[in-house]
Amino acid sequence: MLIVHKYGGTSVGSLERITNVATRVARARDEGNDVVVVVSAMSGETNKLIDFAKYFSENPSKREMDMLLSSGERVTAALLAIALQEQGVDAIAMTGRQAGIKTDRFHTYARIESIDPTAMNNEIAAGKVVVVAGFQGINEDGSVTTLGRGGSDLSAVAIAGALNADACEIYSDVDGIYTTDPRIEPKAQKMDFISYEEMLELASLGAKVLQNRSVELAKKLKVKIVAKSSFSDAEGTVIGEENKEMEEVLVSGIALDRNQARVTLRGVSDRPGIAAEIFNKLAHEQINVDMIIQNASNDGTTNLGFTVPQSELANAKAVMEAFDHDIGGMDFDDSVCKVSVVGVGMKSHSGVAAAAFTALANENINIEMISTSEIKISMVVAEKYAELAVRTLHSVYKLDQ
Amino acid sequence: MLIVHKYGGTSVGSLERITNVATRVARARDEGNDVVVVVSAMSGETNKLIDFAKYFSENPSKREMDMLLSSGERVTAALLAIALQEQGVDAIAMTGRQAGIKTDRFHTYARIESIDPTAMNNEIAAGKVVVVAGFQGINEDGSVTTLGRGGSDLSAVAIAGALNADACEIYSDVDGIYTTDPRIEPKAQKMDFISYEEMLELASLGAKVLQNRSVELAKKLKVKIVAKSSFSDAEGTVIGEENKEMEEVLVSGIALDRNQARVTLRGVSDRPGIAAEIFNKLAHEQINVDMIIQNASNDGTTNLGFTVPQSELANAKAVMEAFDHDIGGMDFDDSVCKVSVVGVGMKSHSGVAAAAFTALANENINIEMISTSEIKISMVVAEKYAELAVRTLHSVYKLDQ
Repeated sequence: MLIVHKYGGTSVGSLERITNVATRVARARDEGNDVVVVVSAMSGETNKLIDFAKYFSENPSKREMDMLLSSGERVTAALLAIALQEQGVDAIAMTGRQAGIKTDRFHTYARIESIDPTAMNNEIAAGKVVVVAGFQGINEDGSVTTLGRGGSDLSAVAIAGALNADACEIYSDVDGIYTTDPRIEPKAQKMDFISYEEMLELASLGAKVLQNRSVELAKKLKVKIVAKSSFSDAEGTVIGEENKEMEEVLVSGIALDRNQARVTLRGVSDRPGIAAEIFNKLAHEQINVDMIIQNASNDGTTNLGFTVPQSELANAKAVMEAFDHDIGGMDFDDSVCKVSVVGVGMKSHSGVAAAAFTALANENINIEMISTSEIKISMVVAEKYAELAVRTLHSVYKLDQ
Repeated sequence: MLIVHKYGGTSVGSLERITNVATRVARARDEGNDVVVVVSAMSGETNKLIDFAKYFSENPSKREMDMLLSSGERVTAALLAIALQEQGVDAIAMTGRQAGIKTDRFHTYARIESIDPTAMNNEIAAGKVVVVAGFQGINEDGSVTTLGRGGSDLSAVAIAGALNADACEIYSDVDGIYTTDPRIEPKAQKMDFISYEEMLELASLGAKVLQNRSVELAKKLKVKIVAKSSFSDAEGTVIGEENKEMEEVLVSGIALDRNQARVTLRGVSDRPGIAAEIFNKLAHEQINVDMIIQNASNDGTTNLGFTVPQSELANAKAVMEAFDHDIGGMDFDDSVCKVSVVGVGMKSHSGVAAAAFTALANENINIEMISTSEIKISMVVAEKYAELAVRTLHSVYKLDQ
């Protein structure tokens, strides 16, 4: 088997931990696998370099930031290769460029355009473990680019795709994806498997493990991800293609997003394009809108609701005031949260949503907004009910069993 | 004018100092010059990375060491470019690869084979200051290589040569080359000019400023070096081609090397090749031999003397014992030092050596070994006389005037 390992900043956060990673890689090798390792910068390094740059400039040039920040991953890659060699494992370190990673030209948030796997394949064929500096590539000018937050996960998934690897194991300090946040519901269970689609909807549960861009790329490239801990030998969670033959699980997990503020617009005039105008203006002000709900009203106007991050509510208010001739009334609430029920099983089962509404009603939790997709039901409730809502839903769908 | 600036680790040893460097570069720019800047890693960084590698291995692979160590210069280059931009100077950072620096394949002590100046010239033509990460290039495989100790000086000189720059200003915490070590002779004078040849012979005086490899390369490429301090506006010392039209200075400086041990072999049998055998064996044991003196004796044998670094004397003794059937007697002394008088002027003047011998004799300093070249006279004396010998010679050649 050819396996890509990816170790995040915490997993390589000290020289001792790099030794630990080398031991894990050596073990995978001893088990007969070919291994390519993608590494992040040692934890704290990237922030230190950002602080250095901020000393000089509030808005340092992105091209130079990329040259600066890409150095952290190179250090880790070189050190891990040295540690592997010392453990008797033939290893070679590669920069993003050497690994054949080409990106578009957008510094600090580049997208991978192609990977030429020739150099990696040659070293694998020569029996070597290839250690690749994550988070980076080069653009058509030959300048170093970086891939933004979570970029090393993207590197790992893209490399696994380019090498047609059997799995991409993403190591962090968390041993998998749980049915909900164990700090809220101690009965939360680690999942053995979750589909790409569910993982995307459960982003907040996986936020510490891997980011949505990587899951999207894995889905596109059909790369099997395994989320594991670098500090234990626990099995981890497989993130892969939905398996039709498996006994279907109705609901996979319950996600909570506390960072939500609600905006409700009543009596919005029904002239064409008003919603587009509102959301274009919000986008122009860099305000991230999450849920959007529109309901027809009786009097020829509509009611429009949406949520934004709490820190952006003040800006959203300001934007809305420009529309006050088109809007009957506005209502803002920054003490709400969003609870989401996610599962591919609900596609083919009715009654999943009803069960959620009933369970919350039984606890006297008022649902302020509802939005549903094929595999997700999201509900906005008062923030004070956050934990109770999560535990109630976790129990209703028997996730603690 | 096109000027290459090179700033060493101390000059960029903190964020404040990088700001200071940016101010200097901006000033050179304001004076109407095109400027290319070559930078070292921030002081301490390279040693930190070496310590990291040594944690894993006594003998880390050189290829990975190069990837590791080259990161320090990249960080400085990116930060300086950002600092320059903040001061309103259009600047672009380049790695060794981006600057077109190709080396041979010998990791950790690579030699520059060629520089393709196209990318640098394009940026200069676009009005930019080019900031190049020193100490590094890539080999024919595309792997990063480093140039060994003092490598950033080599980068700067080679770049100045490739760009046909008007001068290569090497900045350090020392403001030039002095006629002797000012800690020994406070009357030591900073030189305005010194020829490449003299600089090579005065290596110990310039050791903190730039290494011989750089001077040799500058001589070959006819690059004018200016040794300056990054902490003052003093003029510095020009290191360049000997100018026949200048009034000739007899002696330029007095150098002292305390790290010398003397080996004297008496009654060495006169069979052909014995000296070659001895020095081959020393070379094979990695013992650096400095001065070598051979004298014919009366009885068909010869006397052979040489010096080695003090730390290598024990090894040298062991090597010599293997030859004891060919040698009448041996004599070792690790409390000696070497004082050298250097000057191109002495080529065409007799009596320079005689003046040195007379002056030392007047101070009752016994000269144990003498070796001369066209522009240098080196004398081994007891280490206790080191300072007195330096001051005496400094005065005899009127260097304090």
